[in-house]
Amino acid sequence: MKLVCPICGKTYDEPVQRCECGEPVEFEPFTGEPYIGKTVWERFWDFWPVEPELELSLGEGDTPLVRSKLGEEFGIRLYLKNETVNPTWSFKDRGTFLAMGYALKAGYRAVGTVSTGNMAASVSAYASRFGLEAKILVSESAGDEKLKAVSVYGGDVIRVRGDYGKLYFESLKLGERLGVYFINSDNPFRIEGYKGIAFEIAEELTPDYVLIPTSSGGLFRGIAKGFIELHESGLIEELPKLIAVQAEGCSPICRAFKGGKERIERFDNPKTIAKAIANPYPPSGNAVLKLLREFGWGCVSVSDGEILDAQRKLAREGLFVQPASATGVAALRKLDLPEGAKVVSILTGSGLRTLRNAPAGEVRECPLERLEDCLR
Amino acid sequence: MKLVCPICGKTYDEPVQRCECGEPVEFEPFTGEPYIGKTVWERFWDFWPVEPELELSLGEGDTPLVRSKLGEEFGIRLYLKNETVNPTWSFKDRGTFLAMGYALKAGYRAVGTVSTGNMAASVSAYASRFGLEAKILVSESAGDEKLKAVSVYGGDVIRVRGDYGKLYFESLKLGERLGVYFINSDNPFRIEGYKGIAFEIAEELTPDYVLIPTSSGGLFRGIAKGFIELHESGLIEELPKLIAVQAEGCSPICRAFKGGKERIERFDNPKTIAKAIANPYPPSGNAVLKLLREFGWGCVSVSDGEILDAQRKLAREGLFVQPASATGVAALRKLDLPEGAKVVSILTGSGLRTLRNAPAGEVRECPLERLEDCLR
Repeated sequence: MKLVCPICGKTYDEPVQRCECGEPVEFEPFTGEPYIGKTVWERFWDFWPVEPELELSLGEGDTPLVRSKLGEEFGIRLYLKNETVNPTWSFKDRGTFLAMGYALKAGYRAVGTVSTGNMAASVSAYASRFGLEAKILVSESAGDEKLKAVSVYGGDVIRVRGDYGKLYFESLKLGERLGVYFINSDNPFRIEGYKGIAFEIAEELTPDYVLIPTSSGGLFRGIAKGFIELHESGLIEELPKLIAVQAEGCSPICRAFKGGKERIERFDNPKTIAKAIANPYPPSGNAVLKLLREFGWGCVSVSDGEILDAQRKLAREGLFVQPASATGVAALRKLDLPEGAKVVSILTGSGLRTLRNAPAGEVRECPLERLEDCLR
Repeated sequence: MKLVCPICGKTYDEPVQRCECGEPVEFEPFTGEPYIGKTVWERFWDFWPVEPELELSLGEGDTPLVRSKLGEEFGIRLYLKNETVNPTWSFKDRGTFLAMGYALKAGYRAVGTVSTGNMAASVSAYASRFGLEAKILVSESAGDEKLKAVSVYGGDVIRVRGDYGKLYFESLKLGERLGVYFINSDNPFRIEGYKGIAFEIAEELTPDYVLIPTSSGGLFRGIAKGFIELHESGLIEELPKLIAVQAEGCSPICRAFKGGKERIERFDNPKTIAKAIANPYPPSGNAVLKLLREFGWGCVSVSDGEILDAQRKLAREGLFVQPASATGVAALRKLDLPEGAKVVSILTGSGLRTLRNAPAGEVRECPLERLEDCLR
């Protein structure tokens, strides 16, 4: 096991969570070849840092790539990678599964995470599945209804009063001391799990662009690492251009990128309906920034109005996603992509989890005896 | 196109919805061989009554079959067919996709359904996807929150005041007159779509028993037809035993089966938390009854308490389902299956849609400065 800090270059022989310099670490690149197999875990067996616990899989990954008409007005060929059909209905399950396998093998009896939404549900679910205790730290503001879909899986859900921003780092520190393995947003194993999204896309087509809703930066780093490893293995000829998409009301990575900064800065007073990507100080922000520079990739931010419009349009194609998941499609209007480009947008999580703010339509009333008129 | 009434035997050359005798019709059995392909539609190409519109697919079907520990206490090998990871998070999408393809090819410009839950969402979503108008008829009692997850897809959602039981038949009649193709619970194309569940199970194992939550009877008939066609095609050696599972508070099929009746009777004052299977007068009830008799299969009903307990246990394995979907696992305690039997239970729909009644756990409160104590 060899990990490296993508910022300062320091290497580690054991799976630490972060580098001494404060940045996230990652596994050195894997290379290999694909195999025949039912699951992405089996087909890309050479590329995982720990043997996947297939017996405990819930069927995460291997999600559909859906052709979309929404690219037509921009002259592009648009495909939607539908991560809302994972076992707990978001992409998080891919990373959780792999990280949970490490925690089990390493002898941990408890795992944890800091999240209020998709990741909390995912870690609770897989902890129960793997027979591990779960410590789910959520912010004061997390609503009861939302937490139901987390506590149902049986984890120990703890609402923490205080500076939520500090929780990420505090949890890693305490976890180490108490023997709780925290699988936060950019845990190194989690990142590795997200590579599967790149692998599956590459099995179906050669995209020119991939649009990735970006908050902590974990998903972006995972998909990037997946494509880079395919490229280094000689399995794809060219890297696609990756575009990080953020909400205007919380876009610390885009701001630093456009300002030519080396480091991100905390985004004050974040405000967006895309709660799932509203991290004002993303722990993988600098690592994403470096990738964007190194490969000549891009960062785009979109307004809440644009997000809601894209969410509505996606639903009108049969795909009901949460606001954060619609940012990729929302970004199309700002990107001016070349005619005929093959573009993949990642739909990260189900709209059922954020039902309250859904762009619902009208409901008509009709008495049974007048049904014929109502149907005309 | 050849359809037959499973009760009176009358045949039809065009796709009528029901037989003159009042019972549902179905396509004559298909036989064929499997092919290599990414989707269940391609691998079982010989078995569909209409060419699947693959370009318009949302990726329905090809769901995971998950090994479960919940069989251990009964000495059986239990597998869960997780239909909650379909595009609108229930098994309905398989049938909707196929039926929508027929409606498109037949030149309909509008489709409809009678439902308040999963089927309403599924038909709305696919209608938008296929570019068809949707008329979604829901009952007076349908809550606003629940309907949000339907109207978001853009259909015309109509809350009908009056006898909900009459709506099924009334909609077929009016639909025919007005050129609206109603894809209700046991529409013949819908039934065909559900065969994919049987096909996918057979690709992975040879089950001894399959447990099927049963309401209108459409899902049961579809899975049965799938296994029967595999058997007639020489692709499986023996038919599994199929068990229809109902809620005690609404179990017209089990009651008729146990009473040795030829026909089901309306179940008065239905009352169960498993709303998705609470049809008091299932339109495919007699057809299911005939299958149970003919093949020596079974029917079991379970109480709300048993359903809630099973729902909780499934969540503790990482699978959060709606109450109706937990009935199969709830039935295990009543079935006394032979040691070592391979059993598949169908998880029909996501728990996120019935969040209000979820068996949620506790949420603890903790100030940040005391986090270490809270984590111990």
